[in-house]
Amino acid sequence: MAGLVPAIGVFYADASEAADAGTKPDMTTENVMSTAVSPLAPATIPDMPAVSGVRLATAEAGIRYAGRTDVLLALFDPGTTAAGVFTRSKCPSAPVEWCRAHLKTSKTRVLVVNSGNANAFTGKTGRDACKFTAQIAAHAAGCKPGDVFLASTGVIGEPLKAQAFEGVMGGLVARAQPGEFLAAARAIMTTDTFPKVATATAKIGKARVAINGIAKGAGMIAPDMATMLSFIFTDAAISASALQALLKDSVTDTFNAVTIDGDTSTSDTLMMFATGRAAAAPRIARASDPRLKEFKKALHSVLASLSEQVARDGEGARKLVEIVVEGAVSKVSARRIAMSIANSPLVKTAIAGEDANWGRVVMAVGKAGEPADRDKLSIWFGGIRVAHKGARDPGYDEATVSAAMKKPEISLKVALGLGKGRDRVLTCDLTKEYIAINGDYRS
Amino acid sequence: MAGLVPAIGVFYADASEAADAGTKPDMTTENVMSTAVSPLAPATIPDMPAVSGVRLATAEAGIRYAGRTDVLLALFDPGTTAAGVFTRSKCPSAPVEWCRAHLKTSKTRVLVVNSGNANAFTGKTGRDACKFTAQIAAHAAGCKPGDVFLASTGVIGEPLKAQAFEGVMGGLVARAQPGEFLAAARAIMTTDTFPKVATATAKIGKARVAINGIAKGAGMIAPDMATMLSFIFTDAAISASALQALLKDSVTDTFNAVTIDGDTSTSDTLMMFATGRAAAAPRIARASDPRLKEFKKALHSVLASLSEQVARDGEGARKLVEIVVEGAVSKVSARRIAMSIANSPLVKTAIAGEDANWGRVVMAVGKAGEPADRDKLSIWFGGIRVAHKGARDPGYDEATVSAAMKKPEISLKVALGLGKGRDRVLTCDLTKEYIAINGDYRS
Repeated sequence: MAGLVPAIGVFYADASEAADAGTKPDMTTENVMSTAVSPLAPATIPDMPAVSGVRLATAEAGIRYAGRTDVLLALFDPGTTAAGVFTRSKCPSAPVEWCRAHLKTSKTRVLVVNSGNANAFTGKTGRDACKFTAQIAAHAAGCKPGDVFLASTGVIGEPLKAQAFEGVMGGLVARAQPGEFLAAARAIMTTDTFPKVATATAKIGKARVAINGIAKGAGMIAPDMATMLSFIFTDAAISASALQALLKDSVTDTFNAVTIDGDTSTSDTLMMFATGRAAAAPRIARASDPRLKEFKKALHSVLASLSEQVARDGEGARKLVEIVVEGAVSKVSARRIAMSIANSPLVKTAIAGEDANWGRVVMAVGKAGEPADRDKLSIWFGGIRVAHKGARDPGYDEATVSAAMKKPEISLKVALGLGKGRDRVLTCDLTKEYIAINGDYRS
Repeated sequence: MAGLVPAIGVFYADASEAADAGTKPDMTTENVMSTAVSPLAPATIPDMPAVSGVRLATAEAGIRYAGRTDVLLALFDPGTTAAGVFTRSKCPSAPVEWCRAHLKTSKTRVLVVNSGNANAFTGKTGRDACKFTAQIAAHAAGCKPGDVFLASTGVIGEPLKAQAFEGVMGGLVARAQPGEFLAAARAIMTTDTFPKVATATAKIGKARVAINGIAKGAGMIAPDMATMLSFIFTDAAISASALQALLKDSVTDTFNAVTIDGDTSTSDTLMMFATGRAAAAPRIARASDPRLKEFKKALHSVLASLSEQVARDGEGARKLVEIVVEGAVSKVSARRIAMSIANSPLVKTAIAGEDANWGRVVMAVGKAGEPADRDKLSIWFGGIRVAHKGARDPGYDEATVSAAMKKPEISLKVALGLGKGRDRVLTCDLTKEYIAINGDYRS
């Protein structure tokens, strides 16, 4: 394996540079709740190479924001395959339904993503907006509407004025060019405080292929935004069914192992596109093909980096929190317990208060509904064991633990002592800034 | 039916009176995060009559607080029956395990409750503390340790110094007298901003019986407190098995339909005691006895009032929120959807911001995992329909809805249009004060 971006990415040198690079002044004051870049932002941005067969362009359609890009167009060479995983919400957005409906039949020539309006809970108007957008994109790109994929993020419940795309679509197609992944990541931001990109390369047989990814996190500018969107691009040649299997497999321990507040968007979308344009890339038909070994690792590293960046940019986040549960009766059980801890407001506020509050961790373990034995439970914060076999650790030292809790990255480990099930999830703390972003805009 | 306290109780004339009545000056500054009485506190406190066969006393044992009562002792006449429902946590506190173990065999002579320390996650020390407390209480009251029930609320993970009870137990037994329910409610408070009591009477056959209840909510003073305790006392003569069935039945739509933050305590305890000492009270053996008709309603009203008071005193609460889900495929499904809405941080912060944010309600419906059809969904805030059949209501008027959202009590209704399943839960909004109470104590 080669060229992997580390999963714990450090993409920004410092906050001021990050502001220059991405999020500085290009949103109107009205729409901006928090202009400061997350203190957890990676220190540097990786160079994003071109991916053969992918051309990108962005534009300002004025959907909601003034003075910033809000539409991304991706053009794919013929022969590109696509895969997608989507929100489990029973009330998905219109674009999610559009993508699901076309995934098996599409020739995959175009992707259009907008920020500012999620086109969710918009009824027939929303379906019409999807159809209209796909039609004008298909017209401009010279393909069929069914070959166009769509994603939207922003306000829920307000009609998306897709006519706004009409004025920019021709220009987007004309300007589309290789590279531009950082600009693409910026165009899909809402209250993200930094653009999220990751890249890796891998060998498949003798060919070296690239994997680029962009993502946006759960951010709120206006009342109704809370969406995770991510798009992965590779020049490997992989069948649609194999691509789907690879993506589904890799999402389990990356995007599906991240939670900010336990709220699931109506619009969560992760799509992957494989153009097959890498020089000498062998055609891969099955996900079990042994030649994919390195590719799988590289793909996992890209998804792990992007999903960790989402956690680092959680609303109001001041601490990145890794929760490891081991000794559970199974991995599934470990995941449920880890998620119960990660979504507990009491645990999250304790971490915001830099308190190694194992009592609340016990509470969150207990309420998960999974097998647990209080008297076998041990708990670590920042590598320091604070509780052992169902009681406070005899060696507990408040000063040592307090020092560990001041760090921006906190590891919380729970050992259940029941079996071999282990899992890990990422989350962030719960701060007053979260309330401010999500509740204060009217006051 | 007669003498019922209304479920939407109004027990306090105003906040300053409430402070005088209950919570004003008797906690040290060190332990108090929020001295202001909740603006949602009931306007008046009902007169709490004596319940024949129940004597109460409170004392200052100095478990954690200085200058306030922190131990409650209840003495029951011989022949009293008991019932209890407890936390579903897999890591329950030592007193919860004690009560569960003795519920079927106990002669039910004494109840000892302390605040300041939850005796949870304390291992063998915790079990020893239970045993010791029961022994000294039994010795003072002249019964067996197994006839003593115990409950504790406060810090988790720190040993309970039960020796502190030794100095006060004799006096408690000596001073115990009828009435004193308000003093009892005060002794079990942690960060509750007002004491919670409710009372009702009912006829069983020709006898008039009383039902008194006290409760404490999920409050935090020190790092680790988050417990709901409630105790119900009646002079009806009801068998233990019938009492258990009545309590279990009544808790479903009262205490189990209230959520503050979705976090389940290790110590939640609801117990009920029936002394059988009301004049001419007939002995009731079965919960299905038709003579219990009025009693069931009265019991329900007491539990409904107490559980609503818990929601009104949720940490940092500024809005009482009633969530009604109808048209679900079943009541169970309606409950799950209502709880998904009630526990959603995004819905709760929106209500704190006085925003009728139906987009977030759609999100919470969608993530519940229950049958829902986006395009049949209608949503009301404060009785005003804001969304209809999967899109914004055509008659939506921002000014009207905004005015409704400014009220301290907000009703949120969702109609799914699928079936006849209906349910209702109570919650509160999520404010910066919640974060301050639970996360700020170290900064």
